[in-house]
Amino acid sequence: MASIRATKMSFKNIHRSMAGHLRPSNSAVQCLPLHNNKTVSTYMYIGTLASNARQINHGSIQAVYTFCDYQKISHCQQLSWRHLATSSAAHQTAREVPLTSTSHPTLERGPFSRVTDDNVAFFQELLPQRVITDEDDLISSNTDWLGSLRGASQVLLRPKTTAEVSKIMAYCHAHNLAVVPQGGNTGLVGGSVPVFDEVILSTSLMNNIVEFDELSGVLVCQAGCILEKLDNYLAEYGYTMPLDLGAKGSCHIGGNVSTNAGGIRLLRYGSLRGTVLGIEAVLADGRVIDCLSSLRKDNTGYDLKQMFIGSEGTLGVVTGVSILCPPRPQSVNVAFFGCDSFSKVLATYKESKSHLVEILSAFEIMDQEALMYVTKYLELRNPLSKEYPFYILVETSGSDGNHDEEKLNRFLEHIMATELVLDGTVATDSAKIQMIWALRERVNESIQRTKVQYKYDLSIPHRVYYDIVPEIREHLRTHHSHLPVCDVVGYGHVGDGNIHINVVVEEFSEEIKQALEPFIFEKTSNLKGSVSSEHGLGFNKRNYIGYTKTNEAVLVMQQMKRLFDPKGILNPYKTIPSVPGVTTS
Amino acid sequence: MASIRATKMSFKNIHRSMAGHLRPSNSAVQCLPLHNNKTVSTYMYIGTLASNARQINHGSIQAVYTFCDYQKISHCQQLSWRHLATSSAAHQTAREVPLTSTSHPTLERGPFSRVTDDNVAFFQELLPQRVITDEDDLISSNTDWLGSLRGASQVLLRPKTTAEVSKIMAYCHAHNLAVVPQGGNTGLVGGSVPVFDEVILSTSLMNNIVEFDELSGVLVCQAGCILEKLDNYLAEYGYTMPLDLGAKGSCHIGGNVSTNAGGIRLLRYGSLRGTVLGIEAVLADGRVIDCLSSLRKDNTGYDLKQMFIGSEGTLGVVTGVSILCPPRPQSVNVAFFGCDSFSKVLATYKESKSHLVEILSAFEIMDQEALMYVTKYLELRNPLSKEYPFYILVETSGSDGNHDEEKLNRFLEHIMATELVLDGTVATDSAKIQMIWALRERVNESIQRTKVQYKYDLSIPHRVYYDIVPEIREHLRTHHSHLPVCDVVGYGHVGDGNIHINVVVEEFSEEIKQALEPFIFEKTSNLKGSVSSEHGLGFNKRNYIGYTKTNEAVLVMQQMKRLFDPKGILNPYKTIPSVPGVTTS
Repeated sequence: MASIRATKMSFKNIHRSMAGHLRPSNSAVQCLPLHNNKTVSTYMYIGTLASNARQINHGSIQAVYTFCDYQKISHCQQLSWRHLATSSAAHQTAREVPLTSTSHPTLERGPFSRVTDDNVAFFQELLPQRVITDEDDLISSNTDWLGSLRGASQVLLRPKTTAEVSKIMAYCHAHNLAVVPQGGNTGLVGGSVPVFDEVILSTSLMNNIVEFDELSGVLVCQAGCILEKLDNYLAEYGYTMPLDLGAKGSCHIGGNVSTNAGGIRLLRYGSLRGTVLGIEAVLADGRVIDCLSSLRKDNTGYDLKQMFIGSEGTLGVVTGVSILCPPRPQSVNVAFFGCDSFSKVLATYKESKSHLVEILSAFEIMDQEALMYVTKYLELRNPLSKEYPFYILVETSGSDGNHDEEKLNRFLEHIMATELVLDGTVATDSAKIQMIWALRERVNESIQRTKVQYKYDLSIPHRVYYDIVPEIREHLRTHHSHLPVCDVVGYGHVGDGNIHINVVVEEFSEEIKQALEPFIFEKTSNLKGSVSSEHGLGFNKRNYIGYTKTNEAVLVMQQMKRLFDPKGILNPYKTIPSVPGVTTS
Repeated sequence: MASIRATKMSFKNIHRSMAGHLRPSNSAVQCLPLHNNKTVSTYMYIGTLASNARQINHGSIQAVYTFCDYQKISHCQQLSWRHLATSSAAHQTAREVPLTSTSHPTLERGPFSRVTDDNVAFFQELLPQRVITDEDDLISSNTDWLGSLRGASQVLLRPKTTAEVSKIMAYCHAHNLAVVPQGGNTGLVGGSVPVFDEVILSTSLMNNIVEFDELSGVLVCQAGCILEKLDNYLAEYGYTMPLDLGAKGSCHIGGNVSTNAGGIRLLRYGSLRGTVLGIEAVLADGRVIDCLSSLRKDNTGYDLKQMFIGSEGTLGVVTGVSILCPPRPQSVNVAFFGCDSFSKVLATYKESKSHLVEILSAFEIMDQEALMYVTKYLELRNPLSKEYPFYILVETSGSDGNHDEEKLNRFLEHIMATELVLDGTVATDSAKIQMIWALRERVNESIQRTKVQYKYDLSIPHRVYYDIVPEIREHLRTHHSHLPVCDVVGYGHVGDGNIHINVVVEEFSEEIKQALEPFIFEKTSNLKGSVSSEHGLGFNKRNYIGYTKTNEAVLVMQQMKRLFDPKGILNPYKTIPSVPGVTTS
């Protein structure tokens, strides 16, 4: 805590400065300057109730408001900049976000009932002190993480048990009330906020760890447990969560599962489809589907839990999760390389797979433009003495430091000798490791400092993984040279085939958007890629599903939606197009 | 090829000796004595058409008939005893297996049409020379691997393409003909054979490898590719299949996926739910669902492929598979220990996880009774000087022999010093490794030599994993001491929580069966286990689903079945109970 100076600050002042953004009911709040360098002062406000994180402009400083239920201030040490991702909400407060119904004037509200006083009375009896109806208290849950969508829900429910969720859903089903399940509300495609006036069903009080089996490594918990808290809990037993995300400090495991979250450990531990062993979910009509098995093998009938993984709460509300956790790595090394062509990046990836095999835990890249932003706007240092077209970050995680280092050194010797990479540095201590990871992970934040960006989250086959970046640049140069586009930046998880492309602009404009879309989706489709690699489709991308899935497949999805939720009350307007045949827009 | 002496033998003689069991259309057959010790002479007959393997009594010798489409005899070297599993068909020829309709007199045939000459004419026009209607030619495909079920199908279809499968299904759907998809027909629960007169749709000619990406390790192939052939193919690129089974020499990857096959690599590479990246399937009405993605991450809509994994061909016919393959291990070590209590087995497992971590690839056990059978009836040698209540097999697979050995040695020192194990031996050369694996893998075969057995394939939580074995013994001793039960043998994959229990008897009897069932299923259910860990439910176990899944879950499965296959023509009488509410028997 040496670098953190605690300052008392009244809740009222914070609340005022946030202009209605988040309002924890607990007024014992502390203000901690968490990070400070020449260009940024980052503050953390610790409350004790809400679980959410936001970053907004606050006069001349960047202020991170992290409301979590850590009881001890010392836990702040475990939160690093990685968990405090910048968002475009930095440029506006929640109240300034236009209502989604206004920004999407052609979108029709579904044929759902509107919440009445009778409905609220029922909820208040079911959930005493756990029904929120105050407009100010609702605004953060009505607004998405990116600050681009705002719903107009008038009621937020905070059940603690699966039985309560079941009663809520049965009631909403009987009364034709639409419901949006919400975890940490950190999604990037508008999947976790109401579009109109849906009831918000928050999992924030469903945060009990049910059991952990130290032998099998299987953790069973409620859906509202925060990912980072679970990982800290597992650390005591020598285990770790099989997924890691930038939003880990506030995202819920139920949300992770509902969105099939990817993240930086997927290369090593695989997807949630393999590591999630069981799910308990509540269907639209309140029926509880208990598939909360802790068994690694169970071939009895259809694997219903898979229907709740990645379906973004449209088929059921995930209330419980059973997940297989790997042993915590004892040794972590990170190497950072400069490389002069993408073909050599791929050749280096191939060598990393054959040399590092079981200890390879990340293979990430960023292009020259991406590094420029983090070095220029965050004043992070390029650890290499020169600039290169591409930078590679390789991480190893293993159980024996000496063995891992030996493997890594052989790999380094090989790729240097064959000139696949032109320069490199290796970090074994945690400070330098964190410094190198910061280069890769803070690209978004560095761009947000002075610009805005159109973000694309694509899966592209390795052999053509990066081709799309110069193609977008060429497309803009050739056909849209008059548009004020600053840069096209490429970076991502090469190991997973997941590339993030940020088109950096001074300000959003419909003309720029139309220059980019559907061009980028068409290119992705032609390359047999995915228009949503890890973020999901949510509200923003559901009509682009046809660029990745066939009409036949989408039709079956629509049939499944009707089967699970005949009235369509669960998270409406999300994930799949509502009108058969309308699979692109 | 030094140990294999090729002998020419005419097809006619082989065919005669097989009493109607399998009849490849190609008569160029070779007879190879593959394995020979004091008690067994195993022969392999190589044909060039059918893909199937059987082991039957042939006078005084055990003869393994393996019909595969290997063009080169040299490939035989890659087939070992592991792939030529004993089956109870060894005790009878297919013709002696009673018709399922006879052995299950209360089972009613579904309301399907019967195959007419017009239907056959249509199929023959669609698939010239690839429609089999001869009764002798059909018998092996009508009979299950265990030799316990026999259907009465009159027509077997051998499509080569997905388009042909689609036309077949559209036609059968229109004409209300029931269809059973069949791969290598190596399943153990009667899921791949007709129950009455269903049309057999064989994937045996759908055996093309579509592509392999050497960088990502993603293999795309047709459903009829034989697992072992795929693994051999991958070996050339330094990769391996992420699953390994006893039946690998004849099972099809489409069947593996349809049954969510487990096997001995699951501990290391996870389940097919994580490693299968894409599936192409044909629905009951002929619609093709193309989700044959090769992407590691794709979050666009519901993951339909999961519905075809493990649903045993009841929701669709899998025609193509895309699967993520790991690098082939460069170093393999096997250790074998004696242990005096199961609590110490579990403690050893815990230590193996913390010491071996990323290189641990198998942790198997067998009890004293299991070792007795392999040493007595197969004359395999116990490599330890004394007998112990439990034996543990630990395998490591890694990329660096020295590192792996060092980790293994530290593990050995620790468990010997703490007396978790009382004796042990380590094998690093392939001959000794194979010898030790034989002890574990040939338990079934050793019992079949002189007895028959009731087999149970359970998942049980670790802390009570083995408890069920002494409970069964006590139950039989206390309540059924008059029954002629020889032994209750326990062994299995501790790492996966999967225990195999074989109740050894002189001959099958209804009284013994009733003493065991539902006792074993009830015990499993009480322990929150699974009544089918890796074999599936198929025909034999579908009515036991209620011991593992809730009625609510089974009801949803039945709804999904109706959605995907409203006429119920796809693999009827399998996987889930057909009557709502009837979830146990």
